[in-house]
Amino acid sequence: MQVLRITQPGGPEVLTFDERPAPSPGPQELLVRVRATALNRADLLQIRGAYPAPPGVPADVPGLEYAGEVLAVGPLARRFKPGDRVMGLVGGGAFAEQLVVHEREALSLPENLDFPQAAALPEAFLTAFDALVLQGGLSLGESVLIHAVASGVGSAAAQICRALGARAFGTGRHAHKLSRASEWGVERTVLCEGSPPRFADAVREATGGRGVDLVLDLVGGEYLPESLRSLAPRGRVMLVGLVAGRKVEIDLGEILSRRLHLTGTVLRSRPLEEKISLAQAAERHLLPLFRSGALVPVIDDVLPMREAREGLARMARNETVGKLVLRWE
Amino acid sequence: MQVLRITQPGGPEVLTFDERPAPSPGPQELLVRVRATALNRADLLQIRGAYPAPPGVPADVPGLEYAGEVLAVGPLARRFKPGDRVMGLVGGGAFAEQLVVHEREALSLPENLDFPQAAALPEAFLTAFDALVLQGGLSLGESVLIHAVASGVGSAAAQICRALGARAFGTGRHAHKLSRASEWGVERTVLCEGSPPRFADAVREATGGRGVDLVLDLVGGEYLPESLRSLAPRGRVMLVGLVAGRKVEIDLGEILSRRLHLTGTVLRSRPLEEKISLAQAAERHLLPLFRSGALVPVIDDVLPMREAREGLARMARNETVGKLVLRWE
Repeated sequence: MQVLRITQPGGPEVLTFDERPAPSPGPQELLVRVRATALNRADLLQIRGAYPAPPGVPADVPGLEYAGEVLAVGPLARRFKPGDRVMGLVGGGAFAEQLVVHEREALSLPENLDFPQAAALPEAFLTAFDALVLQGGLSLGESVLIHAVASGVGSAAAQICRALGARAFGTGRHAHKLSRASEWGVERTVLCEGSPPRFADAVREATGGRGVDLVLDLVGGEYLPESLRSLAPRGRVMLVGLVAGRKVEIDLGEILSRRLHLTGTVLRSRPLEEKISLAQAAERHLLPLFRSGALVPVIDDVLPMREAREGLARMARNETVGKLVLRWE
Repeated sequence: MQVLRITQPGGPEVLTFDERPAPSPGPQELLVRVRATALNRADLLQIRGAYPAPPGVPADVPGLEYAGEVLAVGPLARRFKPGDRVMGLVGGGAFAEQLVVHEREALSLPENLDFPQAAALPEAFLTAFDALVLQGGLSLGESVLIHAVASGVGSAAAQICRALGARAFGTGRHAHKLSRASEWGVERTVLCEGSPPRFADAVREATGGRGVDLVLDLVGGEYLPESLRSLAPRGRVMLVGLVAGRKVEIDLGEILSRRLHLTGTVLRSRPLEEKISLAQAAERHLLPLFRSGALVPVIDDVLPMREAREGLARMARNETVGKLVLRWE
């Protein structure tokens, strides 16, 4: 089978196609023929050598999500049979024509989604659902501020907020991208061009002075102090990304006196049982909403696999709205 | 009745005795004759003008906890009758001979405690219980690092850890105070003399390299980065005090990649329903352990009320182990 592998640490240009033996499924695993995958910022980090793959995953093949069809199943697998359409998250190795996954980590494709649409779904929607609902406890009538709202995770989060009756506000650095946010149910956006960004006053005004109950922070760095100022008492920040940096000075008095919560989260390094648990929760709570059309993958573009390098470069330049999908031809 | 009131912002010397009309209980309230109260660092802040009393509480009379006997009850009060011995938290005003409280916020005195012992209990044990168990979710077999472990809250927290089967470690700035910690079940202490403090390596070593599940942080400031380094994956910091300062630089990468939680908490400004809820939880979960002797208030000294100023000065100099109690004569 073909894979797209990292030849040395660097930019997208270090990726090259290579032949590799196909993996074989363990007792409860599926062998999947990958029809499409999608790009994530974590791929750029991994290619640069800054985000090594967890144990048990190909170290030199990026790719965190897939959609495809089952080619073979292990002797103890029960949930799927050859020919079934599946999608899901993997710890790496999705830039390949085939991969193996535990059958309980795989999700059925909703009938109304094709492979490229489905490949745009797992990382964005499972990350947003896990952070907002499973960990953040988001509930009816609450309000949420979503940073980088035009990203894959951001646009997914906004749709999940709309679906469960929460109000969504968003930030971003490009006016033309923010203009799309109302499609996903975002009530108001704040353009953040300067440094440090300023959005807390606008968020307080939009929430009648109270602030939001939850901030979904895909950005980190100097956004965090202003995120804390945007929160209502007992509000929570779910920290999911660090595009704006790791080190920041914060005011602990603000956290203490308003009883705020800051929680960091990452999916990739979780143990199998947690990944399965998330996949099963997504099957119950998200798939019905894709079938009904309440949730829709937001796709910037679908490229053939041979244009993966160009796609990664576009993502690095922050030009995209939603996901860039790669398709095997 | 007599009160000890703040004449102007300053140190303990600005407190003076004054006469004031006794309050009268509302429908579901108790009028309590205060026999003893205890000192808290928050009193020093309030006297300095840096921690104003919440609405509905005397602005110029400090004091956050009391033990005494019921003098009269409002027409709808059901839980207590005149003569009953009660204790509890108040938002302020406990440096007085009488106070009123909602009957559902008051706790019965365990038979084996006298008034000074009982006055040392509410703030220390309810703060520790709320932070560790109700909010921190502390459970059997977990490990906890307690900063300022020889303080009132610290020594209460260590005893609660022992009672529920969690391992406790502690830090402090004075060796003679830390030498007391084994009495409260603390397994190992780390003396923190330098700046910034260094304790993460010792904590990791004591936990077999894993780190602790929870840090109870009464100190804040430059302790926080080292606290984050002391945590196991998915560990949580409960931030309860800021003696070491408010502003600090943290590494968000540490929070994200190890999926840490940072939660700020404060009791005083909570709405009535939350204060009642905490008092009721304490009645169910803590009072049986005071009756059995598994939990014991840690008292540094009991002073007559007229020595309140000297007591506050001693607390400010960090000389105490456990609580300083004030007794009306």
